[in-house]
Amino acid sequence: MNPLLDQPIPNLPNLNLPKVVIVGAGFAGLKLARALRNSDFQVILLDKNNYHQFQPLFYQVATAGLEPSAIAFPLRKIFHGTPNVSFRMAEAERVDPVAKRLYTDIGYIDFDFLVLAMGADTNYFGAKNIEYYSSPMKTVSEALYIRNKIISNYERAITISKMEDRKSLMNMVIAGGGPTGVELAGAMAELRNNVFPKDYPELSFKNMKVVLIEAGPSLLAAMSTEAQSHALAYLKELGVEVLLSTKVQDYDGKLVLLEGREPIETQTLLWAAGIKPNRIAGFDQIHYAGNGRMLVNEYNQLFGLESIFVLGDQCLLPGGEFPKGHPQVAQVAIQQAKNLSRNLFRLVNGQELGPFSYKDLGSMATVGRKLAVVDLPFIKFQGFFAWLTWLFVHLMAILGMKNKLFIFLDWSWNYLSFDPSLRLLIKPKYVRASERKELIEEKSS
Amino acid sequence: MNPLLDQPIPNLPNLNLPKVVIVGAGFAGLKLARALRNSDFQVILLDKNNYHQFQPLFYQVATAGLEPSAIAFPLRKIFHGTPNVSFRMAEAERVDPVAKRLYTDIGYIDFDFLVLAMGADTNYFGAKNIEYYSSPMKTVSEALYIRNKIISNYERAITISKMEDRKSLMNMVIAGGGPTGVELAGAMAELRNNVFPKDYPELSFKNMKVVLIEAGPSLLAAMSTEAQSHALAYLKELGVEVLLSTKVQDYDGKLVLLEGREPIETQTLLWAAGIKPNRIAGFDQIHYAGNGRMLVNEYNQLFGLESIFVLGDQCLLPGGEFPKGHPQVAQVAIQQAKNLSRNLFRLVNGQELGPFSYKDLGSMATVGRKLAVVDLPFIKFQGFFAWLTWLFVHLMAILGMKNKLFIFLDWSWNYLSFDPSLRLLIKPKYVRASERKELIEEKSS
Repeated sequence: MNPLLDQPIPNLPNLNLPKVVIVGAGFAGLKLARALRNSDFQVILLDKNNYHQFQPLFYQVATAGLEPSAIAFPLRKIFHGTPNVSFRMAEAERVDPVAKRLYTDIGYIDFDFLVLAMGADTNYFGAKNIEYYSSPMKTVSEALYIRNKIISNYERAITISKMEDRKSLMNMVIAGGGPTGVELAGAMAELRNNVFPKDYPELSFKNMKVVLIEAGPSLLAAMSTEAQSHALAYLKELGVEVLLSTKVQDYDGKLVLLEGREPIETQTLLWAAGIKPNRIAGFDQIHYAGNGRMLVNEYNQLFGLESIFVLGDQCLLPGGEFPKGHPQVAQVAIQQAKNLSRNLFRLVNGQELGPFSYKDLGSMATVGRKLAVVDLPFIKFQGFFAWLTWLFVHLMAILGMKNKLFIFLDWSWNYLSFDPSLRLLIKPKYVRASERKELIEEKSS
Repeated sequence: MNPLLDQPIPNLPNLNLPKVVIVGAGFAGLKLARALRNSDFQVILLDKNNYHQFQPLFYQVATAGLEPSAIAFPLRKIFHGTPNVSFRMAEAERVDPVAKRLYTDIGYIDFDFLVLAMGADTNYFGAKNIEYYSSPMKTVSEALYIRNKIISNYERAITISKMEDRKSLMNMVIAGGGPTGVELAGAMAELRNNVFPKDYPELSFKNMKVVLIEAGPSLLAAMSTEAQSHALAYLKELGVEVLLSTKVQDYDGKLVLLEGREPIETQTLLWAAGIKPNRIAGFDQIHYAGNGRMLVNEYNQLFGLESIFVLGDQCLLPGGEFPKGHPQVAQVAIQQAKNLSRNLFRLVNGQELGPFSYKDLGSMATVGRKLAVVDLPFIKFQGFFAWLTWLFVHLMAILGMKNKLFIFLDWSWNYLSFDPSLRLLIKPKYVRASERKELIEEKSS
């Protein structure tokens, strides 16, 4: 075991206030930490990364429309001038619920209240080959990897003389017809239609496929039938091949095998077909639902553990409107965090807690330039105005004026120029010292 | 040997024009390729990366002021709609000057004219330990690595309880007092003075050192004494410790050993103390000067090989004003490329070639917010107006309206907010398939 675990996390201020430890700075964790700024709680916010990620726009990073920095926000900067909130870049490893202690890779910390907001990761449903060969997109790093992979594939495609051999580098297959899959497929089709032919005049794009595969009978299963049928029509307009009621059987890095259909040649299978909650060690099996989400009451408290809360994608409130858990979307996470922040104040004041109730503000997905589908509680609409709504809502949700401004300019530029400009294959030259030594010796021998 | 070498580079258009093959898309190579757009030459431009890098601003990437994408330009985009120019991302490996054939990792190509514009890389002067442990900054990837390394070090420093142990993570040492070293030192000092104390309120910065080491007796050796003394004064004002006439003796990743001085504890030694020209196989030793640059005549032709030209950092014109070669700066590369483009037209028309003559447009370096030094042929000035001049000149030199606009906004924002916002530790999640398999097996076992 890590020797660091035997010491408390060092250099934390000694505030003599009730300690709220928050694991994860996604929508839920960040919202809660912000709500507790300059309050009578000492907040310790932990995340694996030193930034908050704006998941709804990952697909634009993957398709070269936005820089990672436009949708990633340095956490330390958010908490400038708030001495009651400390951020640590750390990996949470285990909870001791009885001792009220959290173990991390930089030491342990004793909490008065623990909030787990660890989100979800890609679910391959046990398919090892798919996990091995396909590309997930649940972090901004993975989105950047997809961008690099696609550009690499095209640079390779152009060095191959036979059309047949090039196909698998050029075709793109996206598994999962939720918002992520739909948005990725639309953006990829636009790259093929407008950008790649100019970048690679020597390649023929009429045979290049963009395929979207969905196991269920319709796209955007959580949205209205109007949204579903419009999204399908928009994708077809862009030239996306949509295969509904189709399951990916297997994938070997070159050939996507489908149930009852011809296989598809591609070296790019993007997997957006499912998520599963992240886990932390230390809890008995009784705290988990069958799908891995942690069972909480209407205050997001773990059953029987009053000082431990679970938020967002990671939790499940049984017996209510959503037997499998609330939708794993930003709004649920944010609303639960808001409710919990109020309840924490009530808890220390001995007041009665208020239950969480979900207010569905609606959902939306963009399919391409000028095309989106929007379901609001009282109205559903699609097309250009829906796309403007989508732009506006996402721009407002983005953290920080500078990011808002730069994304707005980026979008305007891309819209006017038809040409997202980030087709760069840049990787930080990050080589472990031991490898570098070998490289150097190799070079000089 | 690579089996690919035995085939010609595929998918190149068949234009029946004299073929100019350009190796390297730095200032020289890119300038030449642009000058030959839509001409009666077929141009094949090769580079290891799919983008042109704007070297003068690497230090701003390393210090979180600019995104890599702001100073890297996708090469394919530059050559949209110019069917006589083809770009290939490839590594040039060997020249056969007699057969007029260039071998690369994607195949060979036969040329009528070959232009080597491969630039230079970091020179460690044979010091293996320094090469092993220090960080170079000759590519945008390396600059990004420096940014990630510094942020990692600070995130680690905060998890260490003893002040003594933290020092080596916080101190920064820069070797080399040329423009790169001066600019890095200034920008690092500003991070320490203005940004890090807000990001890491738990750390004490008064003991954190930024040290600039120069082996010669003055900074900015190629500039005027006014520029030198002002740069030194500005750096001291920012709190940089400047050690002149001091050589780095050795470095083990923790301790910088200096001749006749106390060693300095640091895990961050940035090496900007020298460059050496890149090389390609296939030429006899007689073509090289002692410092590794290739000997050319006043037309940038290799001696005895009329169809092969060498430009910029990689070449040396003996017997002139610069016995060790022209200064290795952008202006020389750009002017040589311009002259060569004219000469290529003359060559095919049987006209007499025009010799290269260097017009020194001056040089400048920025030391920090509002401070720079500028030497123009007829006037030298320093301070705020020099800084504005520096901003303007670099903004104009940047390729593309969008990049100009975004960098201008970034600079304005940083200037007004005192807070470069790119303190993100983002790496594309790039793991080789074989490693990923191991990781997955490890996780599930």
